[in-house]
Amino acid sequence: MSPTTTARLMDGTGLARRIVEDAATRAAEISTRTGATPCLATVLVGDDPASVTYVRMKRSRSAKAGITSRHIALPATTSTAELVDTLGALSDDPGVHGILLQHPVGPHIDERAAFEAIAPQKDVDGVTLSSFAAMSFSLPGFVSCTPGGIMRLLAEYRVDLAGKHAVVVGRSAILGKPVGMLLLAQDATVTYCHSRTRNLSALVREADVVVAAVGRPRLVRGEDIKPGAVVLDAGYNAGNVGDVDFDAARTRAELITPVPGGVGPMTIAVLLAQTVDAAAQQLDSGS
Amino acid sequence: MSPTTTARLMDGTGLARRIVEDAATRAAEISTRTGATPCLATVLVGDDPASVTYVRMKRSRSAKAGITSRHIALPATTSTAELVDTLGALSDDPGVHGILLQHPVGPHIDERAAFEAIAPQKDVDGVTLSSFAAMSFSLPGFVSCTPGGIMRLLAEYRVDLAGKHAVVVGRSAILGKPVGMLLLAQDATVTYCHSRTRNLSALVREADVVVAAVGRPRLVRGEDIKPGAVVLDAGYNAGNVGDVDFDAARTRAELITPVPGGVGPMTIAVLLAQTVDAAAQQLDSGS
Repeated sequence: MSPTTTARLMDGTGLARRIVEDAATRAAEISTRTGATPCLATVLVGDDPASVTYVRMKRSRSAKAGITSRHIALPATTSTAELVDTLGALSDDPGVHGILLQHPVGPHIDERAAFEAIAPQKDVDGVTLSSFAAMSFSLPGFVSCTPGGIMRLLAEYRVDLAGKHAVVVGRSAILGKPVGMLLLAQDATVTYCHSRTRNLSALVREADVVVAAVGRPRLVRGEDIKPGAVVLDAGYNAGNVGDVDFDAARTRAELITPVPGGVGPMTIAVLLAQTVDAAAQQLDSGS
Repeated sequence: MSPTTTARLMDGTGLARRIVEDAATRAAEISTRTGATPCLATVLVGDDPASVTYVRMKRSRSAKAGITSRHIALPATTSTAELVDTLGALSDDPGVHGILLQHPVGPHIDERAAFEAIAPQKDVDGVTLSSFAAMSFSLPGFVSCTPGGIMRLLAEYRVDLAGKHAVVVGRSAILGKPVGMLLLAQDATVTYCHSRTRNLSALVREADVVVAAVGRPRLVRGEDIKPGAVVLDAGYNAGNVGDVDFDAARTRAELITPVPGGVGPMTIAVLLAQTVDAAAQQLDSGS
């Protein structure tokens, strides 16, 4: 059976590349103008292989964009107090402009206490409560990177959100909750769905915009996508499978992100862009 | 035409009275134990008659509950900087345990800057960004008073929110947004509707729980209430009219708040309860 329509793909890889090129241009300009190079501190607790890979990727992309990175590898046995001290010291260090604490930090650590030790003006990953509140009330501040990437994709493809019904599947602190607030700030009607939601299918069927951010392979069924909907899949599960059944969804959606190459590359791009923003703010204010 | 069913009324007046009685008992216990009386500072800018009345009511209820109040009346010409200074001084004053800045403060003042000058541990009205983030992530902190009152009504009437679809009409900083986050924390599926929402009726028709918080008389039509739904009306418009068409809604809902006597009285009750909580925390920690 051949599909009657095929969705246009939202090219996260291409948009991310342009954002990183722009960040690199701005980083070079800052270095020339101030003599200081934008610097991202990456903090990793333990040696979870996926986390090691993510941090390595973020550092390598930073380097390509002309952003220095300073890596702090802490043993898995690190206590909350030690981690808070480390993040506090980086927050006070004028040579560091952005701070990334790789998630997850291990069950014995109070992750919220750790996040809150990051100074809001260096919170380029958008994980502090202050950043969340800023996103919720359209105040200045850094956005969580994956939500920020989703919003940039929507802007790039000129999706007018006003009055649209956006269904967010997932309510995590750094993805579901903030992306819902960002969509609401752009006048979407926003529904938060999650593991306790009954009748997810019925809610998805009404959505003009679907954001899947829950980490369960193909949880969102293609047949539930409303014809003409915009689908953003922030899920990334084993075997390059998203949270949306892509093959079925693309026959109904108007715009859809592929996995990989959709939302994924946007996350690092926003991280780097915000690191350069942070450096510019801190160096220009002379702090 | 006589209604086929009639909703049970959620008695906010009665519940608020019990909450205030409990606050009074605790306030007396604190006074006896520590020698210090819980103190609420009320700050009013200008002389808007409705605001004057609200503040007077809050102070009179405080007095009846054994809570001292200290009133600061500022002229309408007060600048943001002057208001921030006043609130900062109250935040530092060990004799003040809770601070209420009466809303609205006038268009020439940066209300957000003013709210942020309130120390989170004295934010008994739940207006700071820190309090909003705490509500959003189920962290310790004070809740916005009207949302807190709505949640207490739901608890009192044993409404199990898990998996229920809650539709919040309104997205203000101290009502719609926080109540949605509190409902989400109790595992409801939450939809935020607002002035740009298309097809509000269709969304209300699916709601197991409706929270109307927008200040437009009878915006929510009774015929849209799903049979058996729970309806909380935080609207209060001229002529004792809520945001819900009460007469029609009560023939379909299972539980509904009257206007007045529903959500309204809960707001002050939560304010007083949180003032006593704040006093207990501050006096017991010796600060």
